[in-house]
Amino acid sequence: MSSKKIEIQLMDEDELSLNLIEAQYFLKNTRGQKNAKSVLVLVNGIELAGKGESVKQLREWVDPRYLKVKADPSIMLDQKQTFWQPYAPFIPAEGQLMVMFGNWYSDLLVTAMHVSKPLDETVFDAYIKDMRAFEQDLKNNHVDVIKVWFDLSWKSLQKRLDNMDPSEVHWHKLHGVDWHDKKPYDNVQKLRRRFTQDWTIIDGEDEELRDQQFAQIILAAMKNCPEHSTQSTAKWKQAAIPELLLHPENQPITKENYKKELKTLSLKVAEALRFDDLKAIVVLEGMDAAGKGGAIKRIVKNLDPREYDIYSIAAPERYEARHPYLWRFWNKLQTDEDITIFDRSWYGRVLVERVEGLTHEAEWQRAYDEINRFEKDLVNSQTVVIKLWLAISKDEQAVRFKAREDTPHKRFKITPEDWRNREKWDDYLSAAADMFERTSTAYAPWYIIANNDKNTARLEVLHAILKQLRVE
Amino acid sequence: MSSKKIEIQLMDEDELSLNLIEAQYFLKNTRGQKNAKSVLVLVNGIELAGKGESVKQLREWVDPRYLKVKADPSIMLDQKQTFWQPYAPFIPAEGQLMVMFGNWYSDLLVTAMHVSKPLDETVFDAYIKDMRAFEQDLKNNHVDVIKVWFDLSWKSLQKRLDNMDPSEVHWHKLHGVDWHDKKPYDNVQKLRRRFTQDWTIIDGEDEELRDQQFAQIILAAMKNCPEHSTQSTAKWKQAAIPELLLHPENQPITKENYKKELKTLSLKVAEALRFDDLKAIVVLEGMDAAGKGGAIKRIVKNLDPREYDIYSIAAPERYEARHPYLWRFWNKLQTDEDITIFDRSWYGRVLVERVEGLTHEAEWQRAYDEINRFEKDLVNSQTVVIKLWLAISKDEQAVRFKAREDTPHKRFKITPEDWRNREKWDDYLSAAADMFERTSTAYAPWYIIANNDKNTARLEVLHAILKQLRVE
Repeated sequence: MSSKKIEIQLMDEDELSLNLIEAQYFLKNTRGQKNAKSVLVLVNGIELAGKGESVKQLREWVDPRYLKVKADPSIMLDQKQTFWQPYAPFIPAEGQLMVMFGNWYSDLLVTAMHVSKPLDETVFDAYIKDMRAFEQDLKNNHVDVIKVWFDLSWKSLQKRLDNMDPSEVHWHKLHGVDWHDKKPYDNVQKLRRRFTQDWTIIDGEDEELRDQQFAQIILAAMKNCPEHSTQSTAKWKQAAIPELLLHPENQPITKENYKKELKTLSLKVAEALRFDDLKAIVVLEGMDAAGKGGAIKRIVKNLDPREYDIYSIAAPERYEARHPYLWRFWNKLQTDEDITIFDRSWYGRVLVERVEGLTHEAEWQRAYDEINRFEKDLVNSQTVVIKLWLAISKDEQAVRFKAREDTPHKRFKITPEDWRNREKWDDYLSAAADMFERTSTAYAPWYIIANNDKNTARLEVLHAILKQLRVE
Repeated sequence: MSSKKIEIQLMDEDELSLNLIEAQYFLKNTRGQKNAKSVLVLVNGIELAGKGESVKQLREWVDPRYLKVKADPSIMLDQKQTFWQPYAPFIPAEGQLMVMFGNWYSDLLVTAMHVSKPLDETVFDAYIKDMRAFEQDLKNNHVDVIKVWFDLSWKSLQKRLDNMDPSEVHWHKLHGVDWHDKKPYDNVQKLRRRFTQDWTIIDGEDEELRDQQFAQIILAAMKNCPEHSTQSTAKWKQAAIPELLLHPENQPITKENYKKELKTLSLKVAEALRFDDLKAIVVLEGMDAAGKGGAIKRIVKNLDPREYDIYSIAAPERYEARHPYLWRFWNKLQTDEDITIFDRSWYGRVLVERVEGLTHEAEWQRAYDEINRFEKDLVNSQTVVIKLWLAISKDEQAVRFKAREDTPHKRFKITPEDWRNREKWDDYLSAAADMFERTSTAYAPWYIIANNDKNTARLEVLHAILKQLRVE
């Protein structure tokens, strides 16, 4: 990686403006097409180098209705949320152009500059690595990420500070750094050199050149919308199907023992989920009628509804489908809720979407790594990710389907589609096998729980939660 | 108003469950229909009266995919945001059922209980009045609001506290009140009696009755989806068209003077917007080509893009249209941004939507009061609302349209639709006249600015902002 050097040709302003507007419409019209994408521009740089001016100039050249600008003050990176969480809601949808001033890099810089103990280089570089991986995932999911650093020499910065209108001083002091002091300037330059290798560096010296260069970079990004590759190049190696999925028989338990154990265990689970300093995410997956709903009921038995969120995941809404597929899950984790339960989850990407052909080969094959990174980020942010697969046999499913059909108030749980899905039973088993193989990580392993006997399984679900919370 | 007494008939559980599920589907299918609505259930009550248990029981009876539960800890009401702002994102869309534990009433109770100086009764009652008005606006916009208070006698509360499982104590202490002390209990009862006249009171004594009553109230609400009345009953009195709209001529200014004044004024505006403790919302409305974009450019001239948000408002997205029409604006005011500029706004309801017949008579006629209440709530929350109408003559508009057509990079600003809208010029004038008459309030007046000469108008826009900010 090396900073891009761009030869700037000054364009006629009206022509540039016209080109930008046409590119905006072109980008907008990719929505729903094979070349659909959005453009996210991350803007950072030296104070007074002209970031703000260039964005204002851009706004005058383009059709302002189709340019979004997000600009909030930087926030310190901490252990309580991932670096992308504050920005997830603002990731642009297909066809959109978004310029983001405050972003994960400004947060990183502010954190590195302001902590009493400077950030360890290893920690700093680990952040950079995670950020780049996140951006690559965005790109793969049709969000083009353009990174622009507005630079300014020490001499020019001093000159601009001296010539600054007094009313402006206040704003520029807001960043809490005295820019007349060479030490923080050098520090910023040193720090940013650790990550700007793959950025476009814009020299803030010449205002006209600067504005044009910024606009032209964005113009180029908007015009470049190739069709997405949909076919995987690598040969797919199907994982072996775990024995437990083929034979999900478990030891039945007497009703009396079940009730007794359930009481103790569910109290223990409530306590563990509640008192832990960590946030907890519980994911339940499994075939239809595998008993996810019943398991959830036992997990929350001794919790108050104010203590948890439950999401039942179905197909995405139309506006959600215009974002990276993980986007709707990023946003469901924005609240302060400490306990979040997913009845089906982001694993739909590699289960139903794969089996039903709703997503291209290249996409679901890429998803395993994306999901692992997503969960890793969460685990690094004081979250325990508990993943449970409830396994039942095909015969047991048929029994439960029929029982549902025979019970009026349970009939809603069963549709012709459920019977149709049964025909793809083996495909789902294969998809599940690949999922275990590729996403059962050390930090977020899968717990496969045989569920032919419901009660035994429910107790095992509780044991698995306690185990992953390190209580058992 | 008086609390509703409901005779509870215990229903067979399976039958109740079936009815609830059918009602959920019925509600869901109203989406996009003439009887479309959503159901918002506000739940409050005495600790341990069984709110949580009833919601958990409800979740077991219904199809959990179509029940949303929102339950966050209460927050203190303060001057910095309106009481509805924290909850606006969670107002359900057409067809949805949402149970909200933490809500504006719990915030009000917590505030009244926890402030060092108890809330003045007048202040408390003023909050209640505003909350009821907000709920009425929700109802008028197809969000049915059901309010349920779970009550429990002092004696029963003490008994339940004594019998409580030790692991539960922690959670119930979270509310920061010692429920073994009769004083806070009596205080809550006294306070809640000031607002529960229009609530359903559920006696938490008998668990089965309690759960059934709660479910049956919701069942009734879901089944009751009458068609919306679309015709206004009152006779409409058209306001006279302000002279300035008919003759928007203003005094041209020399280029030299304009530049000089602009420099001083825009600095003053930036300073006023920036340094004020208040948040500012600037709304620009006017005919096509009235100069809104140019005015915005001058307003932000000396601001950094990080200091403000600009929203260009067009037709709502599909998911936005399934909510009250103000909903998308509520959510745009959620950020900490101190300066928010709207290029067109919520006034679309009584302008384009009225003139183009996109909304029913009853709806736009109701909107004036809804908008006034909305702005009033903002003004009461340390916000200055600045509303600017840029007036041009029909002839001047034609000149500007033609100039746009002759300039390639401005052509995007002009479409056949703009020419068609001109044919309804007089209808738009009438709509604007009614808007001024009905929404020019003492706390948020309209500034009508003649804009046949652009430069003079731009200076006047800045003067108007300074005036409303009480700087001039």
